[in-house]
Amino acid sequence: MLTLYDYMDSGNGYKCRLVLAHLGIPFKLVLCDILKGETRTPEFLARNPNGRIPTLQIEDDTFLAESGAIIWYLADGTPLAPTDRKARAETLQWMFFEQYSHEPNIAVARFWKHYLPKLSALQEMDLPNRMKNGYAALDVMEKHLARNAFFVGGSFGLADIALYAYTHVAHEGEFDLAPFSSIKAWMSRVAAQPNHVTISHKN
Amino acid sequence: MLTLYDYMDSGNGYKCRLVLAHLGIPFKLVLCDILKGETRTPEFLARNPNGRIPTLQIEDDTFLAESGAIIWYLADGTPLAPTDRKARAETLQWMFFEQYSHEPNIAVARFWKHYLPKLSALQEMDLPNRMKNGYAALDVMEKHLARNAFFVGGSFGLADIALYAYTHVAHEGEFDLAPFSSIKAWMSRVAAQPNHVTISHKN
Repeated sequence: MLTLYDYMDSGNGYKCRLVLAHLGIPFKLVLCDILKGETRTPEFLARNPNGRIPTLQIEDDTFLAESGAIIWYLADGTPLAPTDRKARAETLQWMFFEQYSHEPNIAVARFWKHYLPKLSALQEMDLPNRMKNGYAALDVMEKHLARNAFFVGGSFGLADIALYAYTHVAHEGEFDLAPFSSIKAWMSRVAAQPNHVTISHKN
Repeated sequence: MLTLYDYMDSGNGYKCRLVLAHLGIPFKLVLCDILKGETRTPEFLARNPNGRIPTLQIEDDTFLAESGAIIWYLADGTPLAPTDRKARAETLQWMFFEQYSHEPNIAVARFWKHYLPKLSALQEMDLPNRMKNGYAALDVMEKHLARNAFFVGGSFGLADIALYAYTHVAHEGEFDLAPFSSIKAWMSRVAAQPNHVTISHKN
């Protein structure tokens, strides 16, 4: 059985849990407290030298890191991952957009504002930048969703899951989603999918 | 013919140029000066709403953004992209690692130190962090390359191209690669591949 090393509040971990739920794949969940350094122990680093959750154990001694790679692995050959070459690339485009332009701003602002008792001087100085870039990422999503029900090919898939994870908790980073009506309608469509689970749902 | 919108000094753009060279695909190169805001004009934003190079025009009105998605699109079905499910996921793992843990530190430090006349107060304060995290990414690569000739499956592929792009110019960010003997040997192997081109090579 697959084992997912994860932290419940992580949107990156939630992407994997969502895909596992949608595909009905049984798995063992091992929770690691990232705030207590449990992903930086020698034992954990042997699983993922980059010291991060989510990490998926796919064989006795084979581990896969990076949420985008994990959900691609899980969904490869299922309707969540397109088979058409262009649609595959468009899915990856949105997944890389999420990891480069969305997560480092929206998820990081959320972590700083919602989880840290106090910001460092650098975080204080950097926060307005993260907020500005986070809103820019939301603008890009809003424009696309004004013309499309889902991110790729008109149907629900990995790109939606990747972008839903931190967008639906963006308010915890004090992002105001009120003006983003297309994003809000899309979030309702994602949450209405059969087999949807919330971020706090275990397996 | 494919059109690549690019900026020669960009490692992200170089990934695309390397894949195009390896596969012998003819393309039209359109250079955009990112320092002069040429990727933020209304015309460019119509191609890529995220306002970034590289952007690949694959059909009259179809554009693909994000270097990772572009090189996957180009290499899909060729020996540069594995067909085995696990190897595909491992390739994506290293490509997401590059965009999340490597590029935002090594490429950003390089941009700040090598291209900006003067750093802002925030950049000055953030730089030690970027250097530390950049070295952590190099450590992860070094450990893997001490046991593997290439990143995935023992042969040259997209993961190597993605990680080579900014690693081979890390010295421009004042990263000292001297202690990273496995990375240096791997860079020589990458540069020795047939059809390799340098970052300054046009088409």
